[in-house]
Amino acid sequence: MPFLRTASALLLAAAAVAPAPAAESRPNIVFIFADNLGYGELGCYGGGVMRGAPTPRIDALAAQGTRLTNMNMEPQCTPSRASMLTGRWAIRSGCHSVPFGGGADGLTRWEVTIGEVLSEAGYATGYFGKWHLGSDQGRHPTDQGFDQWFGIPRTSDESLWPVTPGYSPDILPVEHVLEGERDQPSRDLGIYDLERRRQIDGEITRRSADFIARQAKAGRPFLACISLTQPHLPTEPGPAWKGRTGHGNWADMLAEMDHHVGELLDAIDQAGAGDNTVVVFTSDNGAEFTRPWDGCSGPWRGQYFTALEGGLRVPFLVRWPGKVPAGRVSNEVMHGVDLFATFAGLGAGRIPADRPIDSRDQRDFLLGRSQKSARDSFLVFVGDRLQAAKWRNYKLHFYRQDTMVDPPVRYPVPMVCNLFTDPREEKPGLTAWVVAPVMKMVEEYEASVRRFPNIPMGTPDPYIPPR
Amino acid sequence: MPFLRTASALLLAAAAVAPAPAAESRPNIVFIFADNLGYGELGCYGGGVMRGAPTPRIDALAAQGTRLTNMNMEPQCTPSRASMLTGRWAIRSGCHSVPFGGGADGLTRWEVTIGEVLSEAGYATGYFGKWHLGSDQGRHPTDQGFDQWFGIPRTSDESLWPVTPGYSPDILPVEHVLEGERDQPSRDLGIYDLERRRQIDGEITRRSADFIARQAKAGRPFLACISLTQPHLPTEPGPAWKGRTGHGNWADMLAEMDHHVGELLDAIDQAGAGDNTVVVFTSDNGAEFTRPWDGCSGPWRGQYFTALEGGLRVPFLVRWPGKVPAGRVSNEVMHGVDLFATFAGLGAGRIPADRPIDSRDQRDFLLGRSQKSARDSFLVFVGDRLQAAKWRNYKLHFYRQDTMVDPPVRYPVPMVCNLFTDPREEKPGLTAWVVAPVMKMVEEYEASVRRFPNIPMGTPDPYIPPR
Repeated sequence: MPFLRTASALLLAAAAVAPAPAAESRPNIVFIFADNLGYGELGCYGGGVMRGAPTPRIDALAAQGTRLTNMNMEPQCTPSRASMLTGRWAIRSGCHSVPFGGGADGLTRWEVTIGEVLSEAGYATGYFGKWHLGSDQGRHPTDQGFDQWFGIPRTSDESLWPVTPGYSPDILPVEHVLEGERDQPSRDLGIYDLERRRQIDGEITRRSADFIARQAKAGRPFLACISLTQPHLPTEPGPAWKGRTGHGNWADMLAEMDHHVGELLDAIDQAGAGDNTVVVFTSDNGAEFTRPWDGCSGPWRGQYFTALEGGLRVPFLVRWPGKVPAGRVSNEVMHGVDLFATFAGLGAGRIPADRPIDSRDQRDFLLGRSQKSARDSFLVFVGDRLQAAKWRNYKLHFYRQDTMVDPPVRYPVPMVCNLFTDPREEKPGLTAWVVAPVMKMVEEYEASVRRFPNIPMGTPDPYIPPR
Repeated sequence: MPFLRTASALLLAAAAVAPAPAAESRPNIVFIFADNLGYGELGCYGGGVMRGAPTPRIDALAAQGTRLTNMNMEPQCTPSRASMLTGRWAIRSGCHSVPFGGGADGLTRWEVTIGEVLSEAGYATGYFGKWHLGSDQGRHPTDQGFDQWFGIPRTSDESLWPVTPGYSPDILPVEHVLEGERDQPSRDLGIYDLERRRQIDGEITRRSADFIARQAKAGRPFLACISLTQPHLPTEPGPAWKGRTGHGNWADMLAEMDHHVGELLDAIDQAGAGDNTVVVFTSDNGAEFTRPWDGCSGPWRGQYFTALEGGLRVPFLVRWPGKVPAGRVSNEVMHGVDLFATFAGLGAGRIPADRPIDSRDQRDFLLGRSQKSARDSFLVFVGDRLQAAKWRNYKLHFYRQDTMVDPPVRYPVPMVCNLFTDPREEKPGLTAWVVAPVMKMVEEYEASVRRFPNIPMGTPDPYIPPR
């Protein structure tokens, strides 16, 4: 796409500003995100009992804090995680797509993650669960600012490979479960097979709870990134949860996830850290699509790997007792990329000033000092293709693509729909004026890319910016 | 459909039982139902801000009481109202379809409505809003057990007729707004044109609030049936609400509806009747379909006039302080037809024993004495066609019909889907055993019809049962 290359200082303006003095004491941050959990799964989003399993612990978390109905993510695992952790659209860091088929993948070490930002600001940092931002030694969480990690470098579908007819490890080996400490090579904890896949969220939860307890005792502020592997395919509950709901694997899994989140909340309380801990629960992208494991996007259409709302909108709950308004529900536009600057702001961390940062600090919005989000729009990339844009309550689609396996087809003119009156994005509106603010966004992005070229996918370390 | 005719005492067993002694003091009943309000519109069902308007008053009502996620209705206005008010599937009373084109319509006076049942039990009874169960004098609410009424005999689309090119009143006159007292002819309050249509829910609310205040003062238990006309097409807010949300007519209408429900709740409180009043809020059927006014079915597919969940499932909230559990959310199957026996039970009214009654008394379930509904299944008629059946968490479709204007096409074998894992009813399952309990239901229904033939649509009064 040739129009995605030039120079502008616009996007750097915010980045160059030094962090504002922290009005809040620097809280702990427990950042829990599920894998492919669709908008419609949780009780507080109209799911729960309707999906065969109530989610009382997560619903209670929602009631204790603020719940967003318009939180958006990049629509694939790798880009979503890249943007949340670096504050940059994943296309900038070479992480615009889930990597397939081996080879170098993930974030270059040149990227600055929230782990590095908060670590430098004095936080203890732990990463537990699925990473998907670098398979090789040297590209794991402990190479990107986290003091310790446990989890899988890639993704849960690999656990199915050994039971796929025709597969042999000679073709491509299945990933292993790993653990590690800062700047050390990760240690191998064995193959990530189906049995391990069913159990890993329990282990992620136990290790996370242990980290929370230890850091709270040490009296040091901490960041725990807890990247649950459910409900990503193969969607199966842990052995202790199998058959619990009577409504099948998906419902059992949902009950298990609710229980795990409850265990994490209990760990925070038991550590006496409830009042001084920001808890965020969200999902990396929209609903699982691959049958028979497909998920529920609630009122929206589409799933992950699409620019439809079902791909972008995810559950988002945030709790900080006495600071984040309780019981608030907001439809303001926010994006996962904003978590970087928001978490940095909470921890008084320093945001890099030498690169485009797309993240907006959402503290004023989330802490209730403003009814408005710091963002009302964003571009939607699907892979390296600018597929759509969201601007206020409008969505503009450049391409039509209904599922991850449909080839995208360019619309002759952008398809604009009103998300209030047309949540399923089926009714193009006569709203050509919406194209103007969207094209302004596109031009600003292109200008920034001309000045700071995107890092190509598969770039090895060391990466040296071409300036 | 020849298999819909024979004799069984099964359905009569429940009907012949005398009402149980009332364990509860006989409460007032304020029964509010919207017109074509889809499952996904209210904040407490995942709508609200996502549709452009928060619904704080209705959401608070939900939190104060019990909210059902599996309340079902017959999927058209006339049958839905007939089944709620008589406790009989609408096909029995000749009300299986919305009447079009003039002629005799609605309930024969032989039917016994909840108005008659509770009136006989000493309740003051009022009906306010859309009726759609009889156009002619002699078939209005005040001919069916209600002490007074105000509203429209048919439906809101007629308000558009005068602005439709080619229309003339000679062809078919538009309905008028009416009011009346028990056993008196209704009085004409003028044509139901577009201007009146926009204002009528305000008037329904004021008259209902006045009725509540008067009856509470008189110290007599009362039943207020409040049949709001929104959001049925043409979906437009009242003049005072136009432009309030900034998000268009639909959102303005939603804000207005929430306000009206709030006014009714305030009226109950101001009358000092809060603790002794059961408040129910629901919708007559699934979402509005006709563009540009179509509504939101939330996670379900389909709209009114279809047997898809979006046609059947409706919001349902019930509050009775200290009696109905607060904050409870249940996915147990319940049906609008059950309101007849449930309201009769609450008021210690007598249910007729001389005809098939399909209604189940849901007091144990709604009052929290049982986790289980008194029903786990029902048949779905679309017009006079047995189109589908719901049995526990399964749906069995005899016909495929995606919208009200698609011709129904019979499936070669019934299409069965699991509503937990397939809320959009797109994935037929290998669950042929579900057909067995459904066919048992069908046989019981057919047997009852052989003994008590259904009343044909358009039957004039007096109706004399052929026995």
